[in-house]
Amino acid sequence: MLGLMQDQPLLISSLIEFAGRHHADAEIVSRRVEGDIHRYRYGDALARSKQVARALDRLNLAFGDRVATLAWNGYRHFELYFGVSGSGRVLHTINPRLAADQVAWIANHAEDRVLCFDMTFLPIIKGIWRHCKTVTHWIALCEAAALPTDTGIEGLCSYEQWIAPESNVYDWPVFDERSAAALCYTSGTTGNPKGALYSHRSTMLHAYGAALPDALCLSARDCVLPVVPMFHVNAWGLPYACAMTGAKLVFPGGALDGKSVYDLIEGEGVTMAAGVPTVWLGLLNHMAQEKVRFSTLNRTVIGGSACPPAMIRTFKDDYGVTVLHAWGMTEMSPLGTVCNLKLKQVALATEEQMSVLVKQGRAVFGVEMKIVDPQGQELPWDGKASGDLLVKGPWIIKAYFKGEGGDPLVGGWFPTGDVATIDADGFMQITDRSKDVIKSGGEWISSIDVENIAVAHPAVAMAACIGVAHPKWDERPLLVVTKKPGLDVSRQELLAFYAGKVAKWQVPDDVVFVDSIPLGATGKMQKMKLREQFKDHKWPSA
Amino acid sequence: MLGLMQDQPLLISSLIEFAGRHHADAEIVSRRVEGDIHRYRYGDALARSKQVARALDRLNLAFGDRVATLAWNGYRHFELYFGVSGSGRVLHTINPRLAADQVAWIANHAEDRVLCFDMTFLPIIKGIWRHCKTVTHWIALCEAAALPTDTGIEGLCSYEQWIAPESNVYDWPVFDERSAAALCYTSGTTGNPKGALYSHRSTMLHAYGAALPDALCLSARDCVLPVVPMFHVNAWGLPYACAMTGAKLVFPGGALDGKSVYDLIEGEGVTMAAGVPTVWLGLLNHMAQEKVRFSTLNRTVIGGSACPPAMIRTFKDDYGVTVLHAWGMTEMSPLGTVCNLKLKQVALATEEQMSVLVKQGRAVFGVEMKIVDPQGQELPWDGKASGDLLVKGPWIIKAYFKGEGGDPLVGGWFPTGDVATIDADGFMQITDRSKDVIKSGGEWISSIDVENIAVAHPAVAMAACIGVAHPKWDERPLLVVTKKPGLDVSRQELLAFYAGKVAKWQVPDDVVFVDSIPLGATGKMQKMKLREQFKDHKWPSA
Repeated sequence: MLGLMQDQPLLISSLIEFAGRHHADAEIVSRRVEGDIHRYRYGDALARSKQVARALDRLNLAFGDRVATLAWNGYRHFELYFGVSGSGRVLHTINPRLAADQVAWIANHAEDRVLCFDMTFLPIIKGIWRHCKTVTHWIALCEAAALPTDTGIEGLCSYEQWIAPESNVYDWPVFDERSAAALCYTSGTTGNPKGALYSHRSTMLHAYGAALPDALCLSARDCVLPVVPMFHVNAWGLPYACAMTGAKLVFPGGALDGKSVYDLIEGEGVTMAAGVPTVWLGLLNHMAQEKVRFSTLNRTVIGGSACPPAMIRTFKDDYGVTVLHAWGMTEMSPLGTVCNLKLKQVALATEEQMSVLVKQGRAVFGVEMKIVDPQGQELPWDGKASGDLLVKGPWIIKAYFKGEGGDPLVGGWFPTGDVATIDADGFMQITDRSKDVIKSGGEWISSIDVENIAVAHPAVAMAACIGVAHPKWDERPLLVVTKKPGLDVSRQELLAFYAGKVAKWQVPDDVVFVDSIPLGATGKMQKMKLREQFKDHKWPSA
Repeated sequence: MLGLMQDQPLLISSLIEFAGRHHADAEIVSRRVEGDIHRYRYGDALARSKQVARALDRLNLAFGDRVATLAWNGYRHFELYFGVSGSGRVLHTINPRLAADQVAWIANHAEDRVLCFDMTFLPIIKGIWRHCKTVTHWIALCEAAALPTDTGIEGLCSYEQWIAPESNVYDWPVFDERSAAALCYTSGTTGNPKGALYSHRSTMLHAYGAALPDALCLSARDCVLPVVPMFHVNAWGLPYACAMTGAKLVFPGGALDGKSVYDLIEGEGVTMAAGVPTVWLGLLNHMAQEKVRFSTLNRTVIGGSACPPAMIRTFKDDYGVTVLHAWGMTEMSPLGTVCNLKLKQVALATEEQMSVLVKQGRAVFGVEMKIVDPQGQELPWDGKASGDLLVKGPWIIKAYFKGEGGDPLVGGWFPTGDVATIDADGFMQITDRSKDVIKSGGEWISSIDVENIAVAHPAVAMAACIGVAHPKWDERPLLVVTKKPGLDVSRQELLAFYAGKVAKWQVPDDVVFVDSIPLGATGKMQKMKLREQFKDHKWPSA
């Protein structure tokens, strides 16, 4: 027997329609690539999203056709989120930090029909447009006047010119909520990138989950700064979740340096900011140098990589800002866990709370998780047993776009590639990426644990711990370190710094100092490159 | 093109499974009808819900069969919520405040197979069991020892005896999320009660919506007291939303007097309580008498009837508790709106905030609303135009159970029977029930406005304003009042109290003092009865 409730599909268009109607005057502020600040409101965003939808109709784009973006966080990108998906096409956000040939490869693989790009990326487009076989329309996210006439790119048009002829009267189409809405490719550390194809249903359920008090706690009283890029798993879903709640939105464009981010936070009254640890490092350095403080920020969501405990402490102790440690993946839309305390932990002493807050946190409702041993047997939630982390849920992929890589699921569960513990309260902690774990004489050493200790040393800027072949122990940990400008530390000092912090056999066997550690397109340390570089490292004889 | 996300139906079983796994040790505290306090945890609730599911299997109940309850808020009722719906049967919560013959009528109409009741309702069951043709099993929510042997009721068993033989190992079935999950009958002020048949999908989406920061803001740091009964639109969905978030739950049983409620709030550290205005009146009276205060409560959700502004002020000014004014209906699962401030209102002066907080609030994401004139034309959102309120969304009914009453929708929208204004910020304010509006010489007078002024008078306990036939004006307002014990006010004094508060033509033409105002099964004033009682009221000649 079926219930007798209204049949209404969960569609992304309902988000911007709701925001435009219920929060018409709530602001959306963008730092443009031109450097100036642009302001408008949800009511304007709704009207212009509808112009985008009509402009796509005019191009005769079919239902499900892909429209790509190569763009920073800004209002035009925001309009594309809703105009493209809302009208039944698929928004394909491409990471502009990828090599140009990878961008072209992805655009071809996705069979993008339209590609919209910020003017900062015009050089990339000039280099690749002839190789993008399926793209017939190139849209530069600018005014007509800002577009050079001599680019030579066929089918090029400015965004403002493109949408200008369209009225903002438009009835969003109604269709199956399982329809594809957006496409993101993984960064693809091995092999070609693979696409995660989100549906309207998955995006809407993820938005509900992300806005919950135990996740990002988003409301109409918030002012949200997504520093995490809109080309990186849809800025962790914030454009959708903010429209759902009517939160004021502040987009940083391409200026992610400490001063620019700080100025936006203070100038716009940001209450919540979200990004990867490297961005916050720049912000905290700027603030320490300038001796400035926050007046409105009350929380930051940190994900993408594990947040060093030292950073959580600095935010809390020095600036009164709560760090919400979060974990997710492109394949998970991306939110999996957020670290929010439980009732029984609210009254704990600061140190005890810290031991919780360094973990990646509890599952957002909608995500199931488990850890298993190498034989696939489930391991206990005791905070000690560590195993491969598997997840399941309506906003987690069941396959990659075009079936690339075959069936990724194991008995209905998606293997994350992370190794983790889960404690009795459901707090999950990543101990390592499974490929980064160091296997020393039958025991596992977490590269993350070793790195967290290193970056707590005042002279260390960044640290990567990798396993390198060892004649006796199979692998032993090698620490690769960059120093902070003007500060120094020796190999001996750094190794001594581990005393009493971990078991002796977990202390790295050696330290090498480098000028820089290679970062991938999403800001993560590329340990694979380091493993290649140091594969013949000669261990000290002692 | 469909997305490639995991196909996972939204099922109620996932709520208790999540709570039992992620919040195994979070408490559920119940004041039992026996008077004592019972404590256990979500882990226990999960195990016993599975025993209920197995016990229903043992009775050979089919998918979709109805299991009724006649019970206060308590842990056994909570287990039935998940054991019944989770196993694919339909939970039918009956309001025990209805007349016994109405209970029997509803049980027969719903074709209930099992009926579970609190021992306080044994007298009702004794009177009706022979008339309930479809019920084959009567389950008394108590220990075997507490059950009298001489009731004469065939098929009677105690709950504990019923579930005791069952193991708590059970795999929840997986089925279409649109399947029926729960059934609630409206109080039926005209004609027979009609059933709203909720689905798993509608219940899950409602739980996500209800837990949002702009709705009830539920988290694992909350301790929630649903004073609103679980037989009244599923306690506004709190059992589901609390399981979703792992909030500590406190159930008051049948003791809803001021002292009992206050003692629970203080004893258990309640942070949020939800109920109808009449319950809070008792609580506030008790607190004023005993000169006591709250130590943990930070918000109350008030719905069911409009909350008098004076009560909102008392909670805020005297006790520092925020009142979340809410509005909904049985046909809406029930949440429609909750009154939470927006960012731009946070810094407003108290009086300006009050002018917002007296409204019923903003739509929870998932609910669309509009107001229309008598011709069905949409009216503007200007806070002034008032018209019939219509709603739409995935947790709103499209028809009543068994098609009773025909098609209730008007062009896809459900007419609420309320008259309301909506302001530019989307804050909705009920001005009246459409049937309670007083039509005086072509102008409408809101009975609620008139009542709110009356109850602000220190000597008035309760006030109902009704339209009574008038030779010149068609209808004129008559105020029916009960006085607070030991306090007095005259007709003239009360009418003078309106001076300067409303236009002269909106002041009631007369006042009658009564000992009590009749209340319906859900605690609402039964104005229909008053209209009948005073239909021949003789207006004063002046």
